Amino acid sequence: MMDIIATVDIGATKTTASLCTREGIIIRVYQKTKLEGPEDTIPRQVKELIDACFIRSGLGTEGLKAVGISTAGPFQKLDGYLHLVSPNICGGMAPERGILPNEWKLVPLERVLSDHYDNIVIQNDAVSGVVAESIFGSGKGLDNLLYATWSTGIGTGALVDGRLIKGKNGNAPHGGHVFLVDGGPRCGCGDDGHLEALSSGTAIARDYGGGASTAEVFGSYHKGDEKAIRIINEASRHFARGLASINNILDTEMIIIGGSVFLNNVDVLLPLVKEEFYRSFPTLSREVQIVPTTLGEHLGDLAALSLVIQNDWIDPWKIKRPWERAPETIVLD
Amino acid sequence: MMDIIATVDIGATKTTASLCTREGIIIRVYQKTKLEGPEDTIPRQVKELIDACFIRSGLGTEGLKAVGISTAGPFQKLDGYLHLVSPNICGGMAPERGILPNEWKLVPLERVLSDHYDNIVIQNDAVSGVVAESIFGSGKGLDNLLYATWSTGIGTGALVDGRLIKGKNGNAPHGGHVFLVDGGPRCGCGDDGHLEALSSGTAIARDYGGGASTAEVFGSYHKGDEKAIRIINEASRHFARGLASINNILDTEMIIIGGSVFLNNVDVLLPLVKEEFYRSFPTLSREVQIVPTTLGEHLGDLAALSLVIQNDWIDPWKIKRPWERAPETIVLD
Repeated sequence: MMDIIATVDIGATKTTASLCTREGIIIRVYQKTKLEGPEDTIPRQVKELIDACFIRSGLGTEGLKAVGISTAGPFQKLDGYLHLVSPNICGGMAPERGILPNEWKLVPLERVLSDHYDNIVIQNDAVSGVVAESIFGSGKGLDNLLYATWSTGIGTGALVDGRLIKGKNGNAPHGGHVFLVDGGPRCGCGDDGHLEALSSGTAIARDYGGGASTAEVFGSYHKGDEKAIRIINEASRHFARGLASINNILDTEMIIIGGSVFLNNVDVLLPLVKEEFYRSFPTLSREVQIVPTTLGEHLGDLAALSLVIQNDWIDPWKIKRPWERAPETIVLD
Repeated sequence: MMDIIATVDIGATKTTASLCTREGIIIRVYQKTKLEGPEDTIPRQVKELIDACFIRSGLGTEGLKAVGISTAGPFQKLDGYLHLVSPNICGGMAPERGILPNEWKLVPLERVLSDHYDNIVIQNDAVSGVVAESIFGSGKGLDNLLYATWSTGIGTGALVDGRLIKGKNGNAPHGGHVFLVDGGPRCGCGDDGHLEALSSGTAIARDYGGGASTAEVFGSYHKGDEKAIRIINEASRHFARGLASINNILDTEMIIIGGSVFLNNVDVLLPLVKEEFYRSFPTLSREVQIVPTTLGEHLGDLAALSLVIQNDWIDPWKIKRPWERAPETIVLD
């Protein structure tokens, strides 16, 4: 019987599930994240997506060894189970009512799924990202590694002294939420001047205004638009200072940066971030390497898997890199 | 033969050494930290102070099992040895030349001492502080614990997931150096707007001006002096936001605060810090306990010891609390 691992990636807009074997990714399905209904809507959707993968692939559920779940955070532990309390998913935790079509204060993710699966590991998506980077990416073999995703939001995950840091509720390191500017713009969490409120894709589009998307602001940057240049320079400066604050706490060896905002604009952003980062407290910054992720768009595939991958799969996956020839994603209504 | 542990506390102004046994603190000596001479001046002084302890106490050096060293940081690892690169000790690392009577770029602390001792553990003083708090203080048994010292400078140490975090050069978590105010006052490390530059005892005295000491500013606070009230409120607000940034990275269970500025003014500062801290990102802050250290002035005695204490000493030390009846410190010229 073939060993199978199910992987799930839960975002505020879409949720992806896949089944993997030692040979590669067998099937992957995709659906809009369901934000309306009772509090257990999302874990029920996760179960349905995994079921759909089994039905469509013809694989037998008896081979399922583990479920790895990579999700937007933060978490809260209740009765030993991780619950989602993300302000982007739980309407009852958002700083303003009515933005989301639910009033959830928490999503009982682990409690519901543990009724169906014996071996589940749930982590914040940037935390599972650093695990993937440490197994398959540029961070291989490093004991101290920080992964930062620069996308519509900003998240981080870290290995310190050779171990993934988790914290009491699994929220370490919530790096989008370091303070940088006293009285700065309001963050999705309700605070002022957090890194995410200053540098995220959302912040860049907000600061430019006029309904421009983040991609359009970068387009204007390349045309020499002064406002776009100023906004992107500032976002990069704050991003670098945020990384410096986090590095001063974690004393890392390498910072790997991913996420759509960064990867789509790496030629612009990487030099700006490096210049500002190395300006900060040289004793703590100068030995840190800053590199873009080499896993690129595949990091999402690998992140949830890396949380639960079997040891004897790692070498064949490293050699064959099956994520580079994964099947087309099946879109479910 | 009696087992002996030597403890050393190296600060920018004074260095203390002691010898401890299972029964308690046998002798403690104190000397101004020697900042003039070749780069190995401080490790030679440490050796001399430990020697002086043995000579004066009559204990035999053959019983020495370990040396625990608690010191101002940060560190840099060279050839596997921790070197001190503190801007408060190394004139060559200070942001301005001529403040210190040396031009050291580093102090080869571990390399020199390892010629004399087989078992040495060196940690930043706030890092050794969190170890002491987790063994003897309010943090007993907690897996996630942050100790913050609020003194002339600001330092932190942390357990995460049951383990002391160290980082690549032993500088985690260098919590005085999180950014808080863009363009804020200059820190001893050269950066702007770091926590230490905003809230330390040095910053409070600097902001009040006129040559007042930190203690005098608190004196003015109690007399209703508006400038003192404003400065202390702001320092407390920044201290709390710094703790919130660090907690958002480490997701801790308890923050224990010590240090002379805090302990001498705990009635004023603790409520101010709590009020601001719990205002930040409630999902991440609300479960955190904030308490003053219960070890008070004895934390320094216990910090270096805790780095190397033998397991069978812990229970008798917890029961007998010998640090409360330690011998008078002998001051050496």
